[in-house]
Formats: sequence, structure tokens, C-alpha cells
Amino acid sequence: MKNIKIILEYDGTNYAGWQWQPGQVTLQGTLEEAVRKTSGEELRVTASGRTDAGVHAYGQVVNFKTESILEPWAWKGALNHRMPPDIRVLEAYDEDEEFSARHSARGKEYEYVVINRPMPSPIYRNHAWHVGYTLDVDAMRDGAGYLIGEHDFTSLRARDCAAKSPVRTLYKLEVEQDGERVKFSVGGSAFLKHMVRNIVGTLVEVGRGRFAPEDVKVILEAKDRTKAGPTAPAQGLYLVQVIY
Amino acid sequence: MKNIKIILEYDGTNYAGWQWQPGQVTLQGTLEEAVRKTSGEELRVTASGRTDAGVHAYGQVVNFKTESILEPWAWKGALNHRMPPDIRVLEAYDEDEEFSARHSARGKEYEYVVINRPMPSPIYRNHAWHVGYTLDVDAMRDGAGYLIGEHDFTSLRARDCAAKSPVRTLYKLEVEQDGERVKFSVGGSAFLKHMVRNIVGTLVEVGRGRFAPEDVKVILEAKDRTKAGPTAPAQGLYLVQVIY
Repeated sequence: MKNIKIILEYDGTNYAGWQWQPGQVTLQGTLEEAVRKTSGEELRVTASGRTDAGVHAYGQVVNFKTESILEPWAWKGALNHRMPPDIRVLEAYDEDEEFSARHSARGKEYEYVVINRPMPSPIYRNHAWHVGYTLDVDAMRDGAGYLIGEHDFTSLRARDCAAKSPVRTLYKLEVEQDGERVKFSVGGSAFLKHMVRNIVGTLVEVGRGRFAPEDVKVILEAKDRTKAGPTAPAQGLYLVQVIY
Repeated sequence: MKNIKIILEYDGTNYAGWQWQPGQVTLQGTLEEAVRKTSGEELRVTASGRTDAGVHAYGQVVNFKTESILEPWAWKGALNHRMPPDIRVLEAYDEDEEFSARHSARGKEYEYVVINRPMPSPIYRNHAWHVGYTLDVDAMRDGAGYLIGEHDFTSLRARDCAAKSPVRTLYKLEVEQDGERVKFSVGGSAFLKHMVRNIVGTLVEVGRGRFAPEDVKVILEAKDRTKAGPTAPAQGLYLVQVIY
């Protein structure tokens, strides 16, 4: 039995998210179908975590246990041959039996891209969130400062988030502006459901002046999802890398 | 009679190029249909120039002459309402009767994006050219230097290019690298058919070592299309702006 780890890049535009669902084209389903066509095995693959419909990944990590004797480089070639061009295996490795893409993960990094200008962008329509209000990037940076470190993120997780503890540690939350493009870089030990999208949705409220930067502290302390900003849309979010 | 000028951004992925063709979804056809639905006029619009199938634009310029009394801001709203989200009017203006998006143009600027790494990128598959060979950016910059200024670009225009003179002036040809991304910024008084794509295709041959930088001078002087590199694919090319 081999334990194969792969690094995946994908464009989430045409997928109903990572997780297998009956009658839907999902990333997990597409990968599992490619595995079945390669080795004949009907197996389940394990990702570092789900991504929502429309979310992209530069470096999703997945593992699966196989009876096949195929080497990692051969898996890479075979899977890419059988998958459409909007999903690609970038790397493949043999791992110890104990390795789990999900349970072994020690951290994750995301990017979130906003196009900040009056008119929506045709070119980035599936790859960024269009925000028409002028954003104050310095105010967003100040607001972001209150989120760094270990906190109870109840105010910033989805209402139906099933995680037992709402406590997580953010070690990075940077906001950069380059012309019309505003990029959020987020790193943490682990993330709650919709946590990155809710952080971005809240910081954008700071950027447009509806919240003051200090309100982010009050929102966090309220432990109440209704106090924070809306969930930023999926198409601006990219899973950049998973740290083990 | 009013002469309306509009600035268009579009994602060329789903279009058979700018120019109207029977039975094809084209950018010109889509815009003309939106004009017809707005004012009832069956008119022809004039672009600064054609873009090929798959080529994108941040700032294509178009004008049309209309009997309608609609103000430019109303044209902008009406056309955007009637066009799909992969094409957008960013700005609209009233122009003098003499203005022609095509004949009044004094210069154009393009970008060309290459993703330079072993594996094709799912996320950029419709928005960049994947080059798997490692590129020497300094060599490409040296080669680019031979193209700046006024030259006979016969070696770098499409064989079926219909322009009377092959002489054009390039005032900018920059090559920048940012991680896996290599960006060519090209500015000139006017361009021949496939000229930007042939320049990029030739400089990539320099970058991978098949041509020396000095060969670019020899290629130009040969006035022979077969001496230059291949035509870079359409999906990496962006019309950035037209100068009047």
C-alpha cells in the first residue's frame, strides 16, 4: 500500500467546489474518476480541506492510499492526462503511511483578490471580487492588525460551521494595493468555515468607511456573526499553500 | 448625428475575435447587437483595430455615428445592460465628427503574459502562454533592444498581412519577470498583423537559447518571415490602450 501526496492547482470556476456531490461536477469527483481510470481503484482522496464552489487553488494538497505500484511521477502524468486543463497535478510524492493531507496540515495560506474601481472587470470576473466603493487600504491594514494572533473567531465563521472550537491563530494578514488590484494575504494554523471570506468582507467594510478599524476588535469580542461584514464572494479566493 | 467613442474591456476567450463574421460570436457583432437593441439602428462600429480570437483588451477604443439623442453615460449604461459580463463599456464620450477610432489612433500599447514553469497553469490557461523551457530574461531584453525604433518589420508580420508598408515604429518593448510570470510591454505608433505575437514568439526563442540576442538584428534585416520565431498564441495578448 502506497500513500501518494499530490499538489494540485485548479481554476474553481467550473466546479461545484472541492467535495464530491451526487450529480455535480466537483474537483474531488474529477480527481477520483482520474484515479479510477488509472489504477481501476474506487478510492476516496483526502484534501487538506474543502474549497467552496468558485474558489481557486495554486497549491491544494491531497493524499490517497493505493495498491498500485505506480511511481509518483507516473501518477502525475496519468492523472494530468485524464483530467481537464483547469485542474493540474503540479507535483507528486511518496509519503509515509501516517501522512494525511488533512490531519497533518500545520498551516494554510490564502490570497484574496479585489478589483477596486467603478466598473466590474470582464477579464477578472471569475478571478476577483469587484468592489465599486473606493477602499482605504491603510484603514483596512489597521483593522487587520486586530485579527493577528490567537482569537475566538465566532464572529467570522459561518453560522453552520461545524468545528468544535472557534479559536484559531492567524500569523499573517497583509493588505497590498497595486493600481486597481487589492490583495489580501492570509496565513494561519487552521481556518473555520468561510473564515477568510468573512475576514475580507469585514475589512472591506472598514475600507469603505462603514466600520472604523477599531470596530474590528469590538466585532471579534462580540462573538456574534451578525456584527461582522458580509461573506466576500468565492471567486476572489485562492488557496496558495498548505504547510506540513 | 452624434459620434460616440467608447472604451471597452473584454475577455476574448469566448469570442471568435473582434471582427463580425457570419454565424460566429464576435465582439463587434455583440456590440452592434447591443446598439441595435438600444436605438434600433443597424449600424457598423469602428474599432482602433481588430483583435484575434482569444485576445483580450483592457482598453479597446470604438466609435459609432448615431441619430440617437442618448448621452454618452446613457449609452454606457444601455450597452452594458445588453452585453454579457465578459465585455464592458468602461467609458463613453461625445467626439467631433472627424474622430475615427481607427484613423485617429496615434499609438497603441499591448501586454503579453507568459507563464514560465514546467507545468501549464489551470488558472491562467486562457490568459497567458505557457512556456515550459526556462527563459533567460536578460537575453530577451537584449534581443528586444534591436526592435526599438523605426524598422521594416517584414520578418515579424503575418504572411497575409495586407498593410502597404511594413515599416513601423516601436517606442517601448520591456520585459519584466515576477516569479513564474514574464510580462512583455509593447508600445508603437501602429502594428502589423500578428506583429506583437511574432515579436514575443521570437524573443521567447532568444530566451530559451535557440537564437542569440544579436540574431534579432539579423532576423529583422532578412525581411523574411521564415527567419523569425513562431507566432505566440493569442490568449497571452492584451490590448492595453490606444493613444490619440
